[in-house]
Amino acid sequence: MTDSIGFSDNERAYVNLARTHMILERAIQLELTRVGLTIPQAGVLYFLNATKVPLTPMKLARLLNRQPHTVSALLTRMEAQGLVKATRDLQRKNWVRLSLTKKGEEAFKRQLSVRTSLNATSCLSKKEIDALNATCKKLYAKGVELVREMQPSRYGGLLFV
Amino acid sequence: MTDSIGFSDNERAYVNLARTHMILERAIQLELTRVGLTIPQAGVLYFLNATKVPLTPMKLARLLNRQPHTVSALLTRMEAQGLVKATRDLQRKNWVRLSLTKKGEEAFKRQLSVRTSLNATSCLSKKEIDALNATCKKLYAKGVELVREMQPSRYGGLLFV
Repeated sequence: MTDSIGFSDNERAYVNLARTHMILERAIQLELTRVGLTIPQAGVLYFLNATKVPLTPMKLARLLNRQPHTVSALLTRMEAQGLVKATRDLQRKNWVRLSLTKKGEEAFKRQLSVRTSLNATSCLSKKEIDALNATCKKLYAKGVELVREMQPSRYGGLLFV
Repeated sequence: MTDSIGFSDNERAYVNLARTHMILERAIQLELTRVGLTIPQAGVLYFLNATKVPLTPMKLARLLNRQPHTVSALLTRMEAQGLVKATRDLQRKNWVRLSLTKKGEEAFKRQLSVRTSLNATSCLSKKEIDALNATCKKLYAKGVELVREMQPSRYGGLLFV
C-alpha cells in the first residue's frame, strides 16, 4: 500500500522515524545552544566524562556512531577551544588518549543542566520505551548489514550491533 | 535507572532512536550515491514529482522538515544543476513555483531504482510498524512542543504535528 505521495508503508515508517529524530535533535540543539554547546561537542564531553579508561579517537568515533575523520576534525576544534586534551600514550607512541580539561569539565556540568529535550521519551510508557528499543535494535542491525554490503572494508570493524 | 555511562532509560531510548536513524540514513545515502544523488536532493525530487499542485519553496521546506533557508540554498544548487525549475507565479509575482526539469525527472527515475535501504523497516512485522508509527507520532508532537517553547515565533507556523 502506498500513501498520497507514493510512499509504501515501510518507507513511511522510515520517514516517520527520520522526522522524529530530526525534530528531537533540533530541540536538543536549541537547549544546548543556551550553554554554548553543539550536539557533537556534547557527545564528546559525555563519553570523555563517563569513561573509566582513557579513550582513543577511534574508540570515541565508535561510541558516537560517527566516521573517524569527522570525529578527528571535531576533536581538533575542541582541543583548540581548550575543552579536550589529547596525550600521546607512553607505551604506544602512535596512540592518542583523550581527556577533558578543567574547562571541558565545566562545560560538561553546564551540559547536564539542560537535558529536558534529551528526556523527551519521558512522554512514553515503559512498555512503549521497551518496544521502541527492541524495534530500534532490529532496525540498527539491518542498517549495519546494509552499510556493510555497500562498504564492506570501510565499515566492517567500525560499527556496533 | 541509569546505564553504565550515566544515561537514564529515557535518554538511552533517544540515543537508540538517533543511532538507528543515523545508520539507516548512511545506508540510504550510500545507495543514492550510486545514482549520483544526495538525501536532500532525493527529498526535493520526491516531493516535486508527487505533488499535484506546483509547490513553493516554503511549502517544500515544510514537507522536508527543513528550515526555509536550508531548502532555499539546496534549490539554488539544484537549479544550477538543471534538476529543478523555479518559475514566478503569474498572479502573485512574489511567489515562486517549483517544478522538475526533464533532467530532474530522469534523476527521479534513477532514484526510484535504489530504494532497498529506504525499505529497511521491511524487517519489522506489521504490528511493530504500527507501534513504531504511534510512538513516533507522540515523540514528534513532543519535539514540536519543545521547539516551539524555545523558538515560539520562528517555528510557530512551520511545523506539522
